[in-house]
Amino acid sequence: MTRVTLLLLVVATLAGVALFTVTTSRHVNAQEPMPIFVKTIPPGYRDWKVVSVAHEAGELNDIRAILGNDIAINAYREGRLPFPEGAIVGRIAWSFVPSEENNKTFGREQSFVAGSPTDAYLQFMVKDSKKYAATGGWGYSSFDKNGKPTDDAGMKSCFPCHQKIKERDFVFTRYAP
Amino acid sequence: MTRVTLLLLVVATLAGVALFTVTTSRHVNAQEPMPIFVKTIPPGYRDWKVVSVAHEAGELNDIRAILGNDIAINAYREGRLPFPEGAIVGRIAWSFVPSEENNKTFGREQSFVAGSPTDAYLQFMVKDSKKYAATGGWGYSSFDKNGKPTDDAGMKSCFPCHQKIKERDFVFTRYAP
Repeated sequence: MTRVTLLLLVVATLAGVALFTVTTSRHVNAQEPMPIFVKTIPPGYRDWKVVSVAHEAGELNDIRAILGNDIAINAYREGRLPFPEGAIVGRIAWSFVPSEENNKTFGREQSFVAGSPTDAYLQFMVKDSKKYAATGGWGYSSFDKNGKPTDDAGMKSCFPCHQKIKERDFVFTRYAP
Repeated sequence: MTRVTLLLLVVATLAGVALFTVTTSRHVNAQEPMPIFVKTIPPGYRDWKVVSVAHEAGELNDIRAILGNDIAINAYREGRLPFPEGAIVGRIAWSFVPSEENNKTFGREQSFVAGSPTDAYLQFMVKDSKKYAATGGWGYSSFDKNGKPTDDAGMKSCFPCHQKIKERDFVFTRYAP
């Protein structure tokens, strides 16, 4: 082995060690931690108080109730931002359908109501600043009508959109008095 | 006084008595009782559970949350009809407005949210079969954003429309699970 070849081998080995160190340290030090998605539906959510209501048109084409647990509702009513630890904001989305029975009674095409559950029937944001530090202190979850969580690939679209409204502590819905 | 004059006087008196009797008996027997409209807002309604949500287009152009007190919610969940005494179904109606801040974040015109309170901001149906017998056992109320009740003339349009859905115990909104 020539001196040149030996030198190249030493350089290549050092470079490899350096690369390995950088790669692992990124995981160990959690400089860019992976998002953690929530996989359980908060118990009793259907009894929660109303934050507001909304209609998402276009591809979603749903009508929705946005609800909050007591920690979230109290924060909303007090105008507190950021939301305190333990706050959960949820939303139920039903398909947006004309009510033929109402329209017949009213005598005009006027009434749109909650139909069947949508594919992303239930969604929640759970505030835990430490556990969900990678996604602004909120853990995200989404479930279909059977309670099946959305897969992690699908969940990766949550934070990039919520991240745009950091000044509202990442929460879209405003309280409707 | 001639006999003819006396006869006319007797006839007129009898007719008067008869008219008085008919008039008073209509009220006493309550054959056509007047509707009674409720003038007070049920305390704590904003904390009630969600029955469903809806959008009324056209002149109303609102988005609404339909809520129920515990008696109403329990009856809905059990599928009980008619609703039991003490049930109250309420609805809050906000103007139906596009959310510019949401649309900007989403990058598309998609989001409609609850805006300012509508003219008929709050409405309630209170079940009391005896008190509100004239209107199917439900007392109706309506309030603007300042809590001012709608005048009785305006309230007379409630029952003629609800009367058409007697088979649903006069209640339009179905429970959205």
